[in-house]
Amino acid sequence: MSLEKLSSNKAFHGDLIKYKFKSTALGGLDSQFNLFLPANAAQGKVPVLFYLSGLTCTEDNGAQKGAFLKDAADEGIAIIFPDTSPRGAGIEGEDTDWDFGTGAGFYVDATNSKYAKHYNMATHVSVELPQVIEAAVIPIDFSRQSIMGHSMGGHGALTLYLKNLKQYRSASAFAPISNPTKCPWGEKAFKGYLQGGLEEAAPKYDATELIAKVKENVHILIDYGTADNFYKQGQLLPENFLKAAREAGHDEVQVRVRPQEGYDHSYFFISTFAADHVHFNANFLKA
Amino acid sequence: MSLEKLSSNKAFHGDLIKYKFKSTALGGLDSQFNLFLPANAAQGKVPVLFYLSGLTCTEDNGAQKGAFLKDAADEGIAIIFPDTSPRGAGIEGEDTDWDFGTGAGFYVDATNSKYAKHYNMATHVSVELPQVIEAAVIPIDFSRQSIMGHSMGGHGALTLYLKNLKQYRSASAFAPISNPTKCPWGEKAFKGYLQGGLEEAAPKYDATELIAKVKENVHILIDYGTADNFYKQGQLLPENFLKAAREAGHDEVQVRVRPQEGYDHSYFFISTFAADHVHFNANFLKA
Repeated sequence: MSLEKLSSNKAFHGDLIKYKFKSTALGGLDSQFNLFLPANAAQGKVPVLFYLSGLTCTEDNGAQKGAFLKDAADEGIAIIFPDTSPRGAGIEGEDTDWDFGTGAGFYVDATNSKYAKHYNMATHVSVELPQVIEAAVIPIDFSRQSIMGHSMGGHGALTLYLKNLKQYRSASAFAPISNPTKCPWGEKAFKGYLQGGLEEAAPKYDATELIAKVKENVHILIDYGTADNFYKQGQLLPENFLKAAREAGHDEVQVRVRPQEGYDHSYFFISTFAADHVHFNANFLKA
Repeated sequence: MSLEKLSSNKAFHGDLIKYKFKSTALGGLDSQFNLFLPANAAQGKVPVLFYLSGLTCTEDNGAQKGAFLKDAADEGIAIIFPDTSPRGAGIEGEDTDWDFGTGAGFYVDATNSKYAKHYNMATHVSVELPQVIEAAVIPIDFSRQSIMGHSMGGHGALTLYLKNLKQYRSASAFAPISNPTKCPWGEKAFKGYLQGGLEEAAPKYDATELIAKVKENVHILIDYGTADNFYKQGQLLPENFLKAAREAGHDEVQVRVRPQEGYDHSYFFISTFAADHVHFNANFLKA
């Protein structure tokens, strides 16, 4: 489980470091992630924000195009950019579609025997990465974690947060897949990865189902673009999440869902609101 | 010469638009560029800053990874991101090396007959793009232009500026190839594109040679990283440029050259100082 440093680039007075390690959660495959460490990490442990990327992405997209680093540096918080799936598991069919398998792990722990050995991105992100980073004596304070993500990664951020309210202080999402048991992307992923399909998925991996049952105070910010084609096609369904949140008693201080006029699904949208999301989460991380 | 809009993404309340057109300067080949138009362009013409990219890049690298858009939006100025060479000229050998030919036009007008029809990036950037954009009635005020770039594009920005002090109000560069007749990249490019080789290049396309002869006031900002491998290998030679500038009487207000401790040649370096460069040039564009 020891970390191998693949590269390091100075950025915004801190360092963007790419690591590789043999991932137990992903069945012994090599896995990579990027870590942004702000300059103040030299003086002591810093809080950390995860960024989960969307379909087809790697650990690089958010680090290179998300425009998160400046504000993370200003706030003095680290960002961990995991990959989006195991790589090279060698499972038949995993490279056939862009929205399933490689690059599309959906942040679940697979129960379908075909995928159960390797496709455990939920454990990879929420358990394994904190462990291996802590074991490497990297100055991150894992008692102060928050999580954000885009699209499939927004689904990952919201569901991991809602299932682990003690682990994460807040969550935010760009154009998240908000009700995945009710959209084609989610249906395909859950039917593939989970033995119990949508029924198994609903209470474990659907943010809209989860928020309906949460009684505790939550801290969630969601942005989506009104010109986002995936939103228009019904893949995202943020209104469902908002409705469930309100019906469960979470007001606009707890759950903010902002339609952004004219924005699409791209990193141009993400980078436009990146500063907002960093500062939103930093507010809880630094509390 | 009419522009075809290939895509448009809302970004930072403005629009990042990709255009294609048949380029006369590039011998009739299709050429693409990105244009960031800030929201205030809806109220009238805005000043414009060019960003010239480095070896192997396209019109996308700076637009996606440079982190220029937020500050351009804040300042209310447009940015034009040209490509780095003609594409598909079909000249034997143009795709053999990464540092010559496709992706490596070096911002010259070729005089070697093999390249003279297509490899005219100097004219493409400084004459043709303003003409086709103006003809398309896009609200840019070409009486207010500045120019910046990275590496090969930093060379392009400095040389185009120094040869056209009436056209551009200021120039800035990230890790520019500052004395190209004295480094391997420049020697290879000039010997290939120019009939007269280095002798032809020196008075036309070498920033260090050019600054030595300029008597007018100039406005130049240069950043380079001390951990940049290409700097260490002697491809950039910013000290030569600085020395020539000082000897020609350009003081630290006219020519600022900043070594940045620990930074490398990557877009992580560029994005760290992107805001500085946008605001530096905006200061003259908005004067």
